[in-house]
Amino acid sequence: MLVNCVAYQNGRKLGAIPIEQASEYIQRTETFVWVAMKEPGREELELVAREFKLHPLAVEDAQKGHQRPKIEEYGESLFAVLHIVENGDDEHVHVAEVSIFVGPNYVVWVRRGTENGFAAVRERSEREPHLLKHGSGFVFYAIMDNVVDRYFPVVDALEVELEKLEEQIFADESPRDSIRELYHLKHKLMVLRHAVEPLIEVTQKLYGGRVPQVCIGTQEYFRDVYDHLLRVSQQLDGLRDMVITALSVNLSMITMGTGEITKRLAAYGALVAIPTLIAGVYGMNFKNMPELDWVWGYPVTLAIMVGLDGFLWLRFRKAGWL
Amino acid sequence: MLVNCVAYQNGRKLGAIPIEQASEYIQRTETFVWVAMKEPGREELELVAREFKLHPLAVEDAQKGHQRPKIEEYGESLFAVLHIVENGDDEHVHVAEVSIFVGPNYVVWVRRGTENGFAAVRERSEREPHLLKHGSGFVFYAIMDNVVDRYFPVVDALEVELEKLEEQIFADESPRDSIRELYHLKHKLMVLRHAVEPLIEVTQKLYGGRVPQVCIGTQEYFRDVYDHLLRVSQQLDGLRDMVITALSVNLSMITMGTGEITKRLAAYGALVAIPTLIAGVYGMNFKNMPELDWVWGYPVTLAIMVGLDGFLWLRFRKAGWL
Amino acid sequence: MLVNCVAYQNGRKLGAIPIEQASEYIQRTETFVWVAMKEPGREELELVAREFKLHPLAVEDAQKGHQRPKIEEYGESLFAVLHIVENGDDEHVHVAEVSIFVGPNYVVWVRRGTENGFAAVRERSEREPHLLKHGSGFVFYAIMDNVVDRYFPVVDALEVELEKLEEQIFADESPRDSIRELYHLKHKLMVLRHAVEPLIEVTQKLYGGRVPQVCIGTQEYFRDVYDHLLRVSQQLDGLRDMVITALSVNLSMITMGTGEITKRLAAYGALVAIPTLIAGVYGMNFKNMPELDWVWGYPVTLAIMVGLDGFLWLRFRKAGWL
Amino acid sequence: MLVNCVAYQNGRKLGAIPIEQASEYIQRTETFVWVAMKEPGREELELVAREFKLHPLAVEDAQKGHQRPKIEEYGESLFAVLHIVENGDDEHVHVAEVSIFVGPNYVVWVRRGTENGFAAVRERSEREPHLLKHGSGFVFYAIMDNVVDRYFPVVDALEVELEKLEEQIFADESPRDSIRELYHLKHKLMVLRHAVEPLIEVTQKLYGGRVPQVCIGTQEYFRDVYDHLLRVSQQLDGLRDMVITALSVNLSMITMGTGEITKRLAAYGALVAIPTLIAGVYGMNFKNMPELDWVWGYPVTLAIMVGLDGFLWLRFRKAGWL
Amino acid sequence: MLVNCVAYQNGRKLGAIPIEQASEYIQRTETFVWVAMKEPGREELELVAREFKLHPLAVEDAQKGHQRPKIEEYGESLFAVLHIVENGDDEHVHVAEVSIFVGPNYVVWVRRGTENGFAAVRERSEREPHLLKHGSGFVFYAIMDNVVDRYFPVVDALEVELEKLEEQIFADESPRDSIRELYHLKHKLMVLRHAVEPLIEVTQKLYGGRVPQVCIGTQEYFRDVYDHLLRVSQQLDGLRDMVITALSVNLSMITMGTGEITKRLAAYGALVAIPTLIAGVYGMNFKNMPELDWVWGYPVTLAIMVGLDGFLWLRFRKAGWL
Repeated sequence: MLVNCVAYQNGRKLGAIPIEQASEYIQRTETFVWVAMKEPGREELELVAREFKLHPLAVEDAQKGHQRPKIEEYGESLFAVLHIVENGDDEHVHVAEVSIFVGPNYVVWVRRGTENGFAAVRERSEREPHLLKHGSGFVFYAIMDNVVDRYFPVVDALEVELEKLEEQIFADESPRDSIRELYHLKHKLMVLRHAVEPLIEVTQKLYGGRVPQVCIGTQEYFRDVYDHLLRVSQQLDGLRDMVITALSVNLSMITMGTGEITKRLAAYGALVAIPTLIAGVYGMNFKNMPELDWVWGYPVTLAIMVGLDGFLWLRFRKAGWL
Repeated sequence: MLVNCVAYQNGRKLGAIPIEQASEYIQRTETFVWVAMKEPGREELELVAREFKLHPLAVEDAQKGHQRPKIEEYGESLFAVLHIVENGDDEHVHVAEVSIFVGPNYVVWVRRGTENGFAAVRERSEREPHLLKHGSGFVFYAIMDNVVDRYFPVVDALEVELEKLEEQIFADESPRDSIRELYHLKHKLMVLRHAVEPLIEVTQKLYGGRVPQVCIGTQEYFRDVYDHLLRVSQQLDGLRDMVITALSVNLSMITMGTGEITKRLAAYGALVAIPTLIAGVYGMNFKNMPELDWVWGYPVTLAIMVGLDGFLWLRFRKAGWL
Repeated sequence: MLVNCVAYQNGRKLGAIPIEQASEYIQRTETFVWVAMKEPGREELELVAREFKLHPLAVEDAQKGHQRPKIEEYGESLFAVLHIVENGDDEHVHVAEVSIFVGPNYVVWVRRGTENGFAAVRERSEREPHLLKHGSGFVFYAIMDNVVDRYFPVVDALEVELEKLEEQIFADESPRDSIRELYHLKHKLMVLRHAVEPLIEVTQKLYGGRVPQVCIGTQEYFRDVYDHLLRVSQQLDGLRDMVITALSVNLSMITMGTGEITKRLAAYGALVAIPTLIAGVYGMNFKNMPELDWVWGYPVTLAIMVGLDGFLWLRFRKAGWL
Repeated sequence: MLVNCVAYQNGRKLGAIPIEQASEYIQRTETFVWVAMKEPGREELELVAREFKLHPLAVEDAQKGHQRPKIEEYGESLFAVLHIVENGDDEHVHVAEVSIFVGPNYVVWVRRGTENGFAAVRERSEREPHLLKHGSGFVFYAIMDNVVDRYFPVVDALEVELEKLEEQIFADESPRDSIRELYHLKHKLMVLRHAVEPLIEVTQKLYGGRVPQVCIGTQEYFRDVYDHLLRVSQQLDGLRDMVITALSVNLSMITMGTGEITKRLAAYGALVAIPTLIAGVYGMNFKNMPELDWVWGYPVTLAIMVGLDGFLWLRFRKAGWL
Repeated sequence: MLVNCVAYQNGRKLGAIPIEQASEYIQRTETFVWVAMKEPGREELELVAREFKLHPLAVEDAQKGHQRPKIEEYGESLFAVLHIVENGDDEHVHVAEVSIFVGPNYVVWVRRGTENGFAAVRERSEREPHLLKHGSGFVFYAIMDNVVDRYFPVVDALEVELEKLEEQIFADESPRDSIRELYHLKHKLMVLRHAVEPLIEVTQKLYGGRVPQVCIGTQEYFRDVYDHLLRVSQQLDGLRDMVITALSVNLSMITMGTGEITKRLAAYGALVAIPTLIAGVYGMNFKNMPELDWVWGYPVTLAIMVGLDGFLWLRFRKAGWL
């Protein structure tokens, strides 16, 4: 579906144009055409590809989806695939994809799998014509910046989740759930990492060394994006490290829990076994057991049982077994 | 066994030729010869080697098999070994090998250990003469692309397998099987990794920096293969990470299971031990035990036993021990 | 809040100047202006940005805070973000941030989140005019050196903490606390690492290869900072390694503890069960049990019970079960 | 001990020469001298060193032995140390060493600690004079190839050993032995790795980039050796990974085994405790226990005991506890 | 404390000179001055610094100590810090430091924290004037070589310690001590690694690429040091790997030990519980229990008890539970 197709000149909006005229507009100087699409059909995308002479391999990637994040040069133009990561309602993170074609005087983006479009990018860009004058390179920056900024709340949510899990682990509550949630947390970190890591290396090439033509003049903006990516990556690394540690800590807590149960079991066992032994002794049928004939024999025996148990109970308490 | 030997000119099929004439055809301009072999004998392969002047070390590798995946330059020509990975019927993945000799005007491939040939590659190539015009480099791309595309279903099957195992682990069902299957999964990942990793570095050299002569003009296609390899590699890395985590999660679940059994054992033990103690007490032979003479002594004692057990049972229930 | 704004010429202090005249002073030769700010408001920072023509992206970073440590070149000037790490009162380390703009003849720093300023840096610098003559590059060194030197006591405190934990672990005391504290220690190491690691790579660029203009002449000082960073990093790596080992050692100690409790449980169980069995035997109601009629039957039986337990107790002692 | 000293011209054997004439032969064109020694004494080695003007540091290394595998350039000549790894009779792998001096027209090798010499290398080389014509570089290749080829059976034996251990682990047989053998396997892998890893980097320099004079013309052969080393290295990496996994799997199996024993213990305990309780009840001495007077009281009670145990046994069976 | 200060010319000792004349001697051609100090005071070191025009940052490092191992260039001269590692009497390794200033015609070293000086270095150097002619670079090599050679016995001692621990682990003796000693072993490895690792990279720069002026002519000697460092590093890596494995093996052994204790506990429990049940049965007070009246009732029951226990004991033995 074509969302819109707008021409700009010198950083100012000329207005929406029919997609079929795009090839004319991109001939003019100081002009560029900005096309937004959402889950386009094959014909729709091929029409756009013809207008802007997009490379077939790039078009095929945008059509098929399920690509790794990447930025590739095709002659003078760039083709980028970015992953949009969103917190889903359930325990998974949701991954959508945006494919971006950037030429000297056009930007075409195609998003798949998300309802949250990039209207904000367009609005912000149109409010800053002095920046939009940089042309398609700046629009490319604006959308990358937008996508990367969406990673932060997701990572922050994962950090909050980990903190909650840490408390749960150290409070020794529902370890079974903690394990499951740590595992899922690790999985989500992997999804994010797969969105972020491949971009880091390629983004570096947009501001240092031999910079693609369309990014010249906006290198410092791409360095800013790069810096944000590094920040996300560092947070992810830290989270990953702590999740692994938390898993091993959880195992230690569980093992310790088992040990403590064994202790309590032993202690309570002793509290029952000792009076049972005494009762057994006085259940013996020896003829000559003088205690049996004593008037106070029974109550004294009961008192000894209770007394011994009381004594043991105190000792176990003190030793931390109960 | 020689599968076929076909000459092409300007991207169009000239027709099958006897292998002995191949050396003549490759003298002509705009012509190349395409040979497919399957588990050839030593003589057969040496005949081909003579016709195309293949390097003895490369021929020896193709003859012996069991090579690492690699792409080597011998003067103007390339020698590549690729691993074909297939899901076997049993719990192993099956590895076959294809050796490819690529010269300026010939492509010779030799496959070993698989029934699934590359007829599809030839058909697709012949349907696209405008691409086949690129010559032997394009054919090399087509076969690499085919081999790499075969990795995806294998990796996807492993992902499905892991998901099944995750469910099994968290449901705490048959942990013994889970361990065994996680171990085998790890093994299969290793096999795939050994097929993919060595290719990544060498493929990069087919599109960037100093590109071998035969790949000039098709660099963007090899970058596409490279990108696919990176995708497989990323999936494998993710899977490996999760398998390791799953193994450690499984150990935690098992440890926790042991702890829970210990708890239940303790609880049931208490339910039996306490009435046993009471019975022991009234089995004592003291003369002076007034309860023994009461008419209701016995039923009241039984009632107390049952009552205590009921009370304990409720408490254990509440504490999650039963 | 503007802390101060001072002009220097040839390494000597000219005196405090109003911030609005800074743009004039930085025109003069051999002169530089040194501005210190603390959590400035937006307007305040923008005033400074105008006077020194600071790059908007850098100003935005200094305004927003929460940046990764970094050193970026903007034309002839540098923009650096450093993390100040302090031992908090509680079990966390406290992270503050200082943003530094370094131009050929100005240094502007902005600190956030810490009460400990850099007055010492200024005092030391003013006492060494022969060094201060190097200009803004030297001031930049002085503040980096100060920030990095603050890492050492924090790392040293963590080393002391680990040593204390090691003793606690091997004394097998409060393993639950050890785990929790090891986990928090790991977390603190991560915070420090995130402060130090990103700086290492960038600091290297201040003394080797193509050095930014403002650092020329002070490279050996930046190499010294680099060396200190490497030292912190090495200490952190060592600590991290030992914390991981300590966690696994702790798990072993806990498991071993469980095993020892099981042993004691078994031993004490035996000490009670065997006399209970003997008592049971003599509680049997067979008619023909000659021992029951013996005068010494009962005391001998008691003596056997005690004797057996004494014997067992000695054996268990010797075997280390008790 | 001098094994032999032979001169070659144009790839053809001239014949054995006295070591003292070697310095004359190496003056002639197209000639090279090939010396093999076995655990030589100091004087013997110094005689050879004088004849061929070997570098004192290299001679010292060859004399002392216990070097890392390495290839060093000394002016126009190379000095290499290779580890020969052999399966010993016991559970260790056996490491021997060969030091090789390669100059433009001589090859001297010195082996230590192994009975298996390199006669095969000499024989093969002499059978292929067209290759031996390449001179000392080719002989160097031939011996490296021979040493590296000896790694494969050792690695293969370790793979077989791991497979045997995997079966043992999953069959849950003798876990104590499995641990010990996995540990020794890991140790052997380390020995092999230490033989292979250092060579990989240096071998790469024998065929790519600036190639040492003596290797020019034989680069493709050294690439072949490099490829074999990579293959061994990959196998070792895979083995190492699986050994670590196997160790952790073994721990899981052991933990699970403990859990299962606990279950059985609990189940059998219950089978005994419940009849004991019933017996205890009817051992009470209450006056008014009507069951005691019933004629069928005793057999019915016994029947109940057996019946309850039968019922429990079935339930435990079904639950997998027995 | 100044140990000595000696001038050399053309590799021959001129004799001890007062430190105040050193600045004159270093003007002469073919002459160099060699100063050895031990824990010098501030003034002493500053006097030397003035004589040889040492860089203030380097002097500060030598004064303060507690540096990372490093080699830094200051103009034409080098400043190196090396760690001397010695086996202490206790369970720690002892780290001392030597700081070395190397100029075109002087060598100044300052050692801290060790009694073992470098007299041997001086003696050996003076015995080899043909090598000492190389000047200060050779002296620098000689001391590095000496320091690095001191690492080997320390590493070897750690290998012996690990072997002892391995035996202890597999003999299942005193696991608590094994853990503690493995932990300390890991700690010692870290100390050594911190001495060795930083040197590896910098030593490489003393023989390859752009070599510092003072090392020219002695590159092959520094390559030898580099090779020794790599060897130590490889041994350390191997040890570290095996220590980690040994820790995990130890955990497995402990877990297995717990399982075995549980088994024995279960077995012995059964041996007691079953006769107890039988005794309980015949302790019941039913009127109609014919066995009670049999003359052989009691001895037969005892025999059954013993017989059952004997049977069980054999079965448990066979099953490996006892």
